[in-house]
Amino acid sequence: MARLLGVLGGMGPLATADFFRKLIEETPAQRDEEHVPVIVYSVPQMPERVAAITHGGESPLPHMIAGMMALRKLEVGCVAIPCNTAHHWYEELQHASGLPILHIADAACDELRKRGSAQPRVGLLCTEATIAARIYQDRLAAHGIECVVNPLAEREAFVRFAIDAVKRGSLDDAGRAIETAAARLFERGVESVILGCTELPVALDAIRSAALPRCIDATRALARECVAWSLAAS
Amino acid sequence: MARLLGVLGGMGPLATADFFRKLIEETPAQRDEEHVPVIVYSVPQMPERVAAITHGGESPLPHMIAGMMALRKLEVGCVAIPCNTAHHWYEELQHASGLPILHIADAACDELRKRGSAQPRVGLLCTEATIAARIYQDRLAAHGIECVVNPLAEREAFVRFAIDAVKRGSLDDAGRAIETAAARLFERGVESVILGCTELPVALDAIRSAALPRCIDATRALARECVAWSLAAS
Repeated sequence: MARLLGVLGGMGPLATADFFRKLIEETPAQRDEEHVPVIVYSVPQMPERVAAITHGGESPLPHMIAGMMALRKLEVGCVAIPCNTAHHWYEELQHASGLPILHIADAACDELRKRGSAQPRVGLLCTEATIAARIYQDRLAAHGIECVVNPLAEREAFVRFAIDAVKRGSLDDAGRAIETAAARLFERGVESVILGCTELPVALDAIRSAALPRCIDATRALARECVAWSLAAS
Repeated sequence: MARLLGVLGGMGPLATADFFRKLIEETPAQRDEEHVPVIVYSVPQMPERVAAITHGGESPLPHMIAGMMALRKLEVGCVAIPCNTAHHWYEELQHASGLPILHIADAACDELRKRGSAQPRVGLLCTEATIAARIYQDRLAAHGIECVVNPLAEREAFVRFAIDAVKRGSLDDAGRAIETAAARLFERGVESVILGCTELPVALDAIRSAALPRCIDATRALARECVAWSLAAS
C-alpha cells in the first residue's frame, strides 16, 4: 500500500474540506484504490491563530502538536497543513512530531514559477499574520520577486472580511470581497495574485470567479505536491 | 471539547470529501471552533465492495475493521460511513470495533419522513449490492413504503455507469446519466428518489441538476445526523 498522507486541518474546516477535494481532483486515478490514502485530523477547537501571532494571544501550538501526534500514532509518512497562517509554527511542528511537513508556500511559489512568465512583482492575499510572519515575502525575494499587498484599509475591508465570511459559510459575500481585493492588486500592475489563505479559493471557487485564472491557489498547489509525494512514495 | 466524530471513508474518496463538506455546511457555526471535531480515515486500498457482495469477491471487511480500529485509537465517540454499500457490514463493524455507527439508510429514511408527504412508493438509485443487501427496502417496508428501482438494463446503463464515472472524476457524464435514471423513476410515478449511493449526489451537485429538489441525498442526511449527535454530545 502507498504510504499514508496526514492532514492537519480544522483551520478552518471548510478550507480543510477544500484541500481534501483538490487532493482527489489532482490525483491521476481511474478507480478508488488509485487515490492517495489519507488521514484528515480536523479539530478546530483551538485558540485563534492570527491573534496569537499579531497580538500575543494564547498559542494554538500545543493543540496543533497534539494533532501531529495523533497523525503520527496512525503512522502517516508526511503531513500537509491546509492553512498558510499555521506555517508560522512550521519548524516547531516538524521538530515536535518528527514528521516531515510539505510547506504550502513552497508549493505556491513552485506553482508561480511553473507558470513561466518572469514576473518582477506578484500580489498576495492573506491574513495579517501571514504578512507579519513573512511566510511569502522571504521566499519570493529569494527569487527576486517583490510581494505586493493591499493597503491595510483594503485588507480589513475585503480580505479579513472575506475570511470571516467563509468561516460562517457566507461564500458569495466572501467571493465578491476577494474579487475586489484582487482587482485592486491587478490595478497596481501585478500579473498574478497568490491566494495565500486557504479560505480564499473556497470563496472564489463558489462564485466561479473570472479572476481565478490569474490567481495562484496555494491549496491546490499543496494538493499537487502531496500527490507527487504519494506517487514517489508508493 | 466536543466529542470526536470518526469518518470511515475512501469508498470512494470523492464521496468522502463530499460528506465532509456537507458536515460543515450542515453545522450551525459562525466560527472555526463551533465546527464538529472530526477524524477522516480515507484509505481506499481495499477490495471492491460491490463485487464482494454480489459475486463473492474478496471481502473488504478486514480493511474496514482496520480503519475502525485506527479511529478507535484516536478515541472517536461515534463513526459515520459515507458509503451505502459498506453498510452491508454494519453489524460486524460495530461489533469488531465497539464503536457506535450512525446508519446512513436510517438517516435517509428519517429525511424522507421529515418531508411530510405520505408517499406509498419511493424511487431508489444505488448499487446492485445495496439492492441485494436490502439496505433500503426493509427499512422502507417497515413504514409501508414500497421501493422502486430501475430495471436492470437501466441500472447498468445509467447508475453503474455514473458511479464508475464519478470514481474517475467525470462528473458531468455521471450527472447526466443519473438525471436520466431519476427521470425514468419519476415517469413510473414516484414523487421522490433516494440517492442511495454516495457517488450520486456528487454528480448531481456538479451539474446543479434540476432533479435535486425531488431527491433525498443520503450523504447530507447522514451529515445532519452527525451534527445532531455532536451537538447532543458536547
